[in-house]
Amino acid sequence: MISLNANLQNNSAIAPLSADVEHRHIEIIDQRALPFEVRLVTLNSVEDVDHAITDMLVRGAPLIGICAAYGMAIGVLSDASDSAVKQTAMRLRKTRPTAVNLMWAVDRMASAILAVPIAHRVDVAWQEAQRIESENILQNEQIALHGAKLIAEMAKTLNRTVHILTHCNAGRLATPVWGTALAPVYMAARQGIDVHVFVDETRPRNQGLLTAWELKAANIPHTLIVDNAGGYLMQQHRIDMAIVGADRVTKTGDVCNKIGTYLKALAACDNHIPFYAAFPLSTVDWALTDGVKEIPIENRSASEVTQITGVAESGNIEAVTFYDENQSVENPAFDVTPARLMTGLITEKGVCTPAQLVEWSPSF
Amino acid sequence: MISLNANLQNNSAIAPLSADVEHRHIEIIDQRALPFEVRLVTLNSVEDVDHAITDMLVRGAPLIGICAAYGMAIGVLSDASDSAVKQTAMRLRKTRPTAVNLMWAVDRMASAILAVPIAHRVDVAWQEAQRIESENILQNEQIALHGAKLIAEMAKTLNRTVHILTHCNAGRLATPVWGTALAPVYMAARQGIDVHVFVDETRPRNQGLLTAWELKAANIPHTLIVDNAGGYLMQQHRIDMAIVGADRVTKTGDVCNKIGTYLKALAACDNHIPFYAAFPLSTVDWALTDGVKEIPIENRSASEVTQITGVAESGNIEAVTFYDENQSVENPAFDVTPARLMTGLITEKGVCTPAQLVEWSPSF
Repeated sequence: MISLNANLQNNSAIAPLSADVEHRHIEIIDQRALPFEVRLVTLNSVEDVDHAITDMLVRGAPLIGICAAYGMAIGVLSDASDSAVKQTAMRLRKTRPTAVNLMWAVDRMASAILAVPIAHRVDVAWQEAQRIESENILQNEQIALHGAKLIAEMAKTLNRTVHILTHCNAGRLATPVWGTALAPVYMAARQGIDVHVFVDETRPRNQGLLTAWELKAANIPHTLIVDNAGGYLMQQHRIDMAIVGADRVTKTGDVCNKIGTYLKALAACDNHIPFYAAFPLSTVDWALTDGVKEIPIENRSASEVTQITGVAESGNIEAVTFYDENQSVENPAFDVTPARLMTGLITEKGVCTPAQLVEWSPSF
Repeated sequence: MISLNANLQNNSAIAPLSADVEHRHIEIIDQRALPFEVRLVTLNSVEDVDHAITDMLVRGAPLIGICAAYGMAIGVLSDASDSAVKQTAMRLRKTRPTAVNLMWAVDRMASAILAVPIAHRVDVAWQEAQRIESENILQNEQIALHGAKLIAEMAKTLNRTVHILTHCNAGRLATPVWGTALAPVYMAARQGIDVHVFVDETRPRNQGLLTAWELKAANIPHTLIVDNAGGYLMQQHRIDMAIVGADRVTKTGDVCNKIGTYLKALAACDNHIPFYAAFPLSTVDWALTDGVKEIPIENRSASEVTQITGVAESGNIEAVTFYDENQSVENPAFDVTPARLMTGLITEKGVCTPAQLVEWSPSF
């Protein structure tokens, strides 16, 4: 039998990013190697951070934000001048175009750094990055608590295991300690509620692998399905609710998330199944009102679709190509689920309808 | 560069099944080996035919029907008694549970065989199987003509290339010469209409590979996308119409087709994009009125989801496993798209709305 999870026993506490403040670098799990290998990578430079985000060694909107924040802190180590800080900010903002936490975190770091004299910038930058990380963990704990209430209510109504669909990975690997979409699941399980998760494979990058991996580590029952199967399971009343993460949310509650989310939201709506997105409010782009028109959608390379890595019969880890290299491919990474399809939004401040979200705007 | 289509040049006329009436056997393309290899397999016994259908060496509802018809004809070669015919029919009916063409073809064969004395059964059986095959080709040509009119009208309205989404493979490999869902595309291209096909990957078995392969052979422009991407492309007005095949259709126009079809139909409806299913009327199960409740959905093995075959860096064709073998997986093969989501049904008799389908019922 092939075991893909050799390192799992040692990783019951998964930390996708650890900051070594003393040595002024960060260590990340290269998520591209999961679940075959827990490969730790040290990031020492802005180049390293750029590469880690662009090539998706780290992924998940909140984690990208945290990683970029530390990238800003690493940047000031070599040059703390105004121009260097601005240049690093510009560079890191461009690493991924869709997730707004990235821009939010970089801008917050730049403001904090530029507000103090050059001599203090390294300390301030590292403190601010740590603050962003800590705040995120606390926010996600609140998301966990608010979301677990929804699951608890569902469990009480149904008086049986609650079956929850999730798409992509918005768990501990996407944002430290709790995750976002999986935070309510972890909290509900801790509270003794019987939950079972249907895990969407999430082509083309198969982040369902990551979700299955971390749910296994947490001993939470789950079943993997292909992205095509969710609609059928909803028609058969096999799914009680869906919770997904978010990469950018408009003021009006349109939710941009991993490609395919919109299709599942349509099916949930068609079958009267509650559909939630869970995210910290830093995910909201308060300037936007029409997600489909206004949110830029990242197009990624064809090879994400045409190649896959797995364990060959020899036991070696191999990448195989299953389409001709000349095959024309289009690979959009995200889609936008209109607010009308969202039952509710689970944030650190509580659960709201899309229409209520604006009340938590900084300018409300 | 890896070439996955080494044999393609020799296969511009793709024949997924050829009957050798003289030698009383049939030859099929083992579609599991495509597009890496054009592997021809001879079927000499009912066991061979059972295996070819069950293990999906042949696939596509009409082709399964034709293959099973020849299976009945092969069966009478060794034993043409009533009991043997009935036993073969029972066996072949069980090879796949969802596609109704299979049951229709087996029953038609059994009736034709049992209606004549034993001495004539071999000849009658082979003639009847050939008739089923020929009728299917003519039906699909009619489907091509009726469907091409829809594409032509769309091309006239838009005055540009028509972008058509398809799911799974309902082309020349699924049903001889024209295909069903792709028949209108082939005919439109022959008529000089500019068409471009978005090809759904169609996890877990990636029949999009087959569709891309045969469209390439026919020199029809096409782009491969993951199953998650169709909704986004529809939101962006990048898809003008969708045409899919069908494995079983109810009297009321509910369409059972490859898993994931329902999700695409929801997105088409949400974006006011016409959504068609193309099939011969032998695909209709006139006894059924509620597809979601009444059509049995085949569950297939976990390994279809957890393994994939491709070309490794060595150039060898390798199967890789990318989930742990203990991973719990659910793998439904089909879903049902309710009639309300179908713009029209393209059959050999013409294009109708789901509500009009009943008028073509044998008992109407």
